[in-house]
Amino acid sequence: MVIDFDILHTDGAARVGRLTTPHGAFDTPMFMPVGTRATVKGVTPDQLEAVGARIILANTYHLALRPGDEIIRDLGGLHCFMGWSGPILTDSGGYQVFSLTDLRQITDEGAVFRSHIDGQLLELTPERAVAIQENLGADIAMCLDECPATNADAETLKRAVRRSILWASRCRDAHCRADQALFGIVQGGLDLELRRHCAEELAKLDFPGYALGGFSVGESAEQMQAALPACASFLPPANPHYLMGVGRPEDILAAVTAGLDLFDCVLPTRNGRNASAFTMDGPLRLRNARHRRDSAPLESDCACYACRHFSRGYIHHLFQVDEMLGPTLLSIHNVAFYLRLMGEIRDAIREGRFAAFRTGLEARLARHGDNP
Amino acid sequence: MVIDFDILHTDGAARVGRLTTPHGAFDTPMFMPVGTRATVKGVTPDQLEAVGARIILANTYHLALRPGDEIIRDLGGLHCFMGWSGPILTDSGGYQVFSLTDLRQITDEGAVFRSHIDGQLLELTPERAVAIQENLGADIAMCLDECPATNADAETLKRAVRRSILWASRCRDAHCRADQALFGIVQGGLDLELRRHCAEELAKLDFPGYALGGFSVGESAEQMQAALPACASFLPPANPHYLMGVGRPEDILAAVTAGLDLFDCVLPTRNGRNASAFTMDGPLRLRNARHRRDSAPLESDCACYACRHFSRGYIHHLFQVDEMLGPTLLSIHNVAFYLRLMGEIRDAIREGRFAAFRTGLEARLARHGDNP
Repeated sequence: MVIDFDILHTDGAARVGRLTTPHGAFDTPMFMPVGTRATVKGVTPDQLEAVGARIILANTYHLALRPGDEIIRDLGGLHCFMGWSGPILTDSGGYQVFSLTDLRQITDEGAVFRSHIDGQLLELTPERAVAIQENLGADIAMCLDECPATNADAETLKRAVRRSILWASRCRDAHCRADQALFGIVQGGLDLELRRHCAEELAKLDFPGYALGGFSVGESAEQMQAALPACASFLPPANPHYLMGVGRPEDILAAVTAGLDLFDCVLPTRNGRNASAFTMDGPLRLRNARHRRDSAPLESDCACYACRHFSRGYIHHLFQVDEMLGPTLLSIHNVAFYLRLMGEIRDAIREGRFAAFRTGLEARLARHGDNP
Repeated sequence: MVIDFDILHTDGAARVGRLTTPHGAFDTPMFMPVGTRATVKGVTPDQLEAVGARIILANTYHLALRPGDEIIRDLGGLHCFMGWSGPILTDSGGYQVFSLTDLRQITDEGAVFRSHIDGQLLELTPERAVAIQENLGADIAMCLDECPATNADAETLKRAVRRSILWASRCRDAHCRADQALFGIVQGGLDLELRRHCAEELAKLDFPGYALGGFSVGESAEQMQAALPACASFLPPANPHYLMGVGRPEDILAAVTAGLDLFDCVLPTRNGRNASAFTMDGPLRLRNARHRRDSAPLESDCACYACRHFSRGYIHHLFQVDEMLGPTLLSIHNVAFYLRLMGEIRDAIREGRFAAFRTGLEARLARHGDNP
């Protein structure tokens, strides 16, 4: 197998696993910082490694447009290109084509769209999505899927599931890189029967891992959290389960409860650039004037570079004067926060106390860090 | 003495010294990266230390306005505030008041100006400049000076010299912080007799170090380089000599030849943010399409983080897609370049071959790195 996945502990449906890839192994549940354009915004690979990042995600759609997947291949592949020697996962570009572009035509053959960069008319087929990802050379590639909003009408969801299964089969046939795993993506919105059907059909294709796609796209957090246990139960249990594009710490706690293993989300870096820090006791808004004279770190029990060296007062100042170091320090802290959260989740599962851990942490997260 | 300065080697007027400050010692000639608003733009203190920065500069004027020097004092002083445990030098704010603000009135008492931030009417006197810098707590503070353009008329230059001497005396009287050195600033533009007079009067005040101010403000590089040997010769030889706000590598080579020891300039970080890399063989413009597929590092013999891990092609990509990591990597490299330059200068002086080193390097620097 290109990758190995061993489930080491379970606690209800939650599980701790060990995922081994060509570029290294790590324990799950794990969060993947998002490096859309071959860089996790504002954070160097060294800083990512220092906060405990073990796998990162990059975006096929963005990289195929700029600089182009063939340039990345010629410059030694994505790991070499972006200076990250650990595991990488690339999405297939499906979600971006459906959400970012002027989508002109979608047939069973593939999607025709206008680039959001230069208006060029482009086509993304299952075979092209695989070829791009083979050029990028991530450890884990994703099948091309049709990704409608979860609250799309029944006919749209049904067609998307049919096409996602068809495309998954074509991706599998097209994929030949021996040092890369290809995961299938289950669609179906909030329709559990569609989700079950999609999962069963993909399982027949025997992928080494499976993702739930289309969440966080139109439904409420409550709707998503309610659907996750059933959706996760349809996935082959021995393989890694990846919940794409999700989410808030509360969402991750719910998803781990349901048996999900891998997560990615832009929130830690996006919120960091917007002067918002995650803490276990709720968010801090660093532009708030109450932090002006505050000598405390963002979180007293966080060991990240930002918390070891800088006060809330200093970070407030950096945002007041619009200095790059502000977004960088908060992005480092927020990624560190997510990775610390995952570590605490794994410890709780290993020790058979995940449900209590989740309940306690949800109460803390609901506080307002700015007004303790 | 608060600081010690030992001259270890000389080669013509050029010298290698060792400057010991309350927060550490380093060898001169030395370049100080500029941290205007208590951060060297785009670079963390850890990254600064890794490229060999030993002393940095911060700006009294900017910090007095935001966040305010009393807040910095209350948050433990500038070293603690900005997470830099090595030596720091703060300028007096004079240059910024004359160049950035709506200057309303200048008398022997001080300067009245409107803040460039909020239009507030403020006054900067010698006593206030010292009080602010004592609150900031840098290792080296600077006297308030009147800083006209070097090409100002004779009367303006003469008045500025008279006032700078008067203000230096008042700064010296006001200064009481025992763990901070106060340097005098010689003005006089390109008028060598004025420069001599100013230097002699300041020497009577027995400062532990002296600066040449007002260069790079109106004159050509040739005019400055021609004036430097005489201007430097007027300074007390046993003390450190600081050329404020200068400059390009070529300017620093000329200034070292004249006997200057300390330098600061925004060029490495400003050029880095503008996609320009310093190399010993001339500048690289990383937005240039010819770097698109280039797998080479910025400089093959540079050991900085950017050069050890990333290709010109990757950095070109980062600037094409406007990612923060581009400015960060080039700022790291450019600061590393300046510090490597200073190290090579010191080695050449120690080995008595500085003139030949300068001639050879000037020829290389005049190349165009983009078109070898």
